[in-house]
Amino acid sequence: MQPYWSTHFMLPGQQHAQAQAVSEALEHAREGIAELAGCESFEVVFTGGGTEANNLAILGVLSDQPVGHVLYSCLEHESVLGPLERLTRLGWEIEPVPCGANGIIDTVKVDQMIRPDTRLMCLQAANAVVGTIQPVRQVADICHSRGVVLHSDATQVFGKMPIDVTQLRADTVSISGHKFYGPKGSGALYVRRGLKLAAITYGEPREMGLRPGAENIPGCVGLGAAAMLAQRCCVDAADKLAEMRDKMIEDLRQQVPGGITVLCEAAERLPNTLAIELPADTSRLQESARQLAISTPQSSSPPDEMTRVLRSIGRSEQQACRTMRISLGWTTSSEQLSRAVKLIAAAYDGR
Amino acid sequence: MQPYWSTHFMLPGQQHAQAQAVSEALEHAREGIAELAGCESFEVVFTGGGTEANNLAILGVLSDQPVGHVLYSCLEHESVLGPLERLTRLGWEIEPVPCGANGIIDTVKVDQMIRPDTRLMCLQAANAVVGTIQPVRQVADICHSRGVVLHSDATQVFGKMPIDVTQLRADTVSISGHKFYGPKGSGALYVRRGLKLAAITYGEPREMGLRPGAENIPGCVGLGAAAMLAQRCCVDAADKLAEMRDKMIEDLRQQVPGGITVLCEAAERLPNTLAIELPADTSRLQESARQLAISTPQSSSPPDEMTRVLRSIGRSEQQACRTMRISLGWTTSSEQLSRAVKLIAAAYDGR
Repeated sequence: MQPYWSTHFMLPGQQHAQAQAVSEALEHAREGIAELAGCESFEVVFTGGGTEANNLAILGVLSDQPVGHVLYSCLEHESVLGPLERLTRLGWEIEPVPCGANGIIDTVKVDQMIRPDTRLMCLQAANAVVGTIQPVRQVADICHSRGVVLHSDATQVFGKMPIDVTQLRADTVSISGHKFYGPKGSGALYVRRGLKLAAITYGEPREMGLRPGAENIPGCVGLGAAAMLAQRCCVDAADKLAEMRDKMIEDLRQQVPGGITVLCEAAERLPNTLAIELPADTSRLQESARQLAISTPQSSSPPDEMTRVLRSIGRSEQQACRTMRISLGWTTSSEQLSRAVKLIAAAYDGR
Repeated sequence: MQPYWSTHFMLPGQQHAQAQAVSEALEHAREGIAELAGCESFEVVFTGGGTEANNLAILGVLSDQPVGHVLYSCLEHESVLGPLERLTRLGWEIEPVPCGANGIIDTVKVDQMIRPDTRLMCLQAANAVVGTIQPVRQVADICHSRGVVLHSDATQVFGKMPIDVTQLRADTVSISGHKFYGPKGSGALYVRRGLKLAAITYGEPREMGLRPGAENIPGCVGLGAAAMLAQRCCVDAADKLAEMRDKMIEDLRQQVPGGITVLCEAAERLPNTLAIELPADTSRLQESARQLAISTPQSSSPPDEMTRVLRSIGRSEQQACRTMRISLGWTTSSEQLSRAVKLIAAAYDGR
C-alpha cells in the first residue's frame, strides 16, 4: 500500500501518464479479489467496507423497482437490517425468515414465504456469532426459480474459507477487508454480470458507475493483497483453526467446572468463530479475567447482534448472559488458547 | 497511521480494554480537524471522502423534508451535482445560480432566486478549475435570513488556506483528505450543532448515528494528522504558493509567444490553482511536452468539470481548447515551474 500514498499519488482516469500505474494497481487488486471469489474482475466493485457493500446491494438492487416485499434471514447483521428498515419507511414490507436451534435458516420456509411481489432475499453466508454456514446455494436456487434476487453478506466467510460465487449463485456478495487482514475502510461488492444495480451515492462515474468519488487506492491495493494471500493460505489456515478450535472446546469441557455448551455444535460452522455457554454469568469472567478479549451480548435497547442471534436460535435471556463468543485468528497460538482456557476455568472454579 | 493496521487493530466501541486506545486515536484525529475548521469535535463526522461528504450533506439534510426547491452555484463539482440530480428524480426542483465572467457567484441572484419552498443552497468555498474564492459568508447570511440551509463543498480550500466554519457560517462543510496530503479514502463533514441531518447509509450506529460501518481508523488518523500539519504551516505554504504562482504567470507572459490569459485574474483566488489560456490549442502542448502533468477540458458528453466551469464563466469552445489548468503543491519547486514555463513556451514557439 505504501507507494500509493507517496510516489503513486495520482488517481486512475487522470490524463497524465503517471496515473496509468495507479489504474493498473487498482485493476490488479480487483483481479486478486475476483480470483478468490471465482468471478470476473468487472463483477467486483470496491466500496468503503462491508456496511457500504450491504447498503449498495440492497438499496441499489431495489432502487428503481416498484415497492414490494423483501425477505431476510433472522440472523443478519445491522448493516443488512439498516437498509431494510430504511426500505420500510419507503413503503416496502420486510419479513424475517426464522432459523432452527441449529442456527441454520429454514429453506422450506423461504420457499413458503416468497410472494409474487418479493423482490429480494438477504441471506448471510455465515453467522458472525455462532459461526453457522448458511445454505446460500439452495436458497439462491429457490429464489431464482421464483424471480427473486439473492444478496449474500459473506463478510464472515470471504478470505477465511474458500468461496466461489458462481457456486454460491448469489446475485450480490459483500466482502469486508478488515475481516481477513485487509485494511479497515476497504470492502467490495460482487455484482453478478447482467444484474441491474444503481449507485446509492452520486458524483463522478467511477467503479463502473456504481460508486463515485476518488478511490481509496491504498485501501483497494491492500484488499487485493489480502485476497491474494488468502487465496494461497486460507485452506491451510482454516484447517489449522478448526483443529485449534476443537482442541479448545475439548479443553474447556475438561477444565471448566460445570462444563460448557457449544452453540450450534452439530451444524457446519466457520473454523474461527465459537459461541460458548458457560456454567454461570459471564460477568464473572469479565471480573476475574479482564485480559481476555471476548464478546458477550449487550441486550440493552436496541439489542446487539449477539443478543438477536441468541434469541433467534431460541436461547433464553439467562442463557444469553452465560454466553461468550471467541474468535480465533491466523496468529492465535495454541499457547494463547491454553492460557485462555485456564483463565476461563479458574473464573468458574468454586462456583 | 501504521500502528492502526498492526498493534491497534481493534475497533472503537468494542468491549475490551484494547479498543480504548483506538477510540482515543479516533477522537484525537477528530479534534485535529475541528481545530483547523474552528468548530467543536462533535461537529465533525468522518466519511470515506469528499464525494461521500457532499452526498451525506445534501441527501442527509433533505432526507425527511417535503419535496421542494434547491439552489446551487453553476460552478459545483460532480459530487454535488450527482445528489442534486438524484433529488430531481424524487420530484425536487433544482436550479443553478449563475456566476459572472470573474468566476464568482452573484449574491444578488441568490437572494432573488430563493423561493418560499427553497430548502438548500450549495456553494463551494473555492472553484477547482479557476481557483476563485466564493462569497460563502454573504450567501450564508442571505440563506439563513430566508430559512435556507447552506452546504459548502470546501474540498478545494480546507487544508490549503485558513478556514473557520463559524466565520463561513455554512451549515455543512465538506472536507477531502487527499486534497491536503491526507490519505485517499478519507474525508469528513462538518455538521453545525443542532442541524437536523439523517444518515444516507444504514447499519450499526457510529459517527453520532450519521455514518455506519467500521471506521477506517488509519484513514481517520491520517486525516487528523494532515489537518494538524496544515494548521501549523498552511498560511506560510499559501504565501509561498501565491508567490510562485505569480512568478510563473510573469514568466509565461514574457516567454510564451503570443502571450497568455489568466482566467478570473482579478478575483480573489486559491494560491495553488491556475487556469491559463494559451495562444493556440493545448493539443500542441500535449504532443510536445508530454512530461507535463496538466489538466485540459474534456468536452465529450457529459462534459467534465473543467468544460462546465469554462462555459459558466463565458469562455467559448475555442477558448476552452486553448485552456489548461495547473496545480501547485507544497513540494513544487521554482525550478520545476521554470522548466514547465520553458516547455510551454517551446510548444508555442514558431506558431
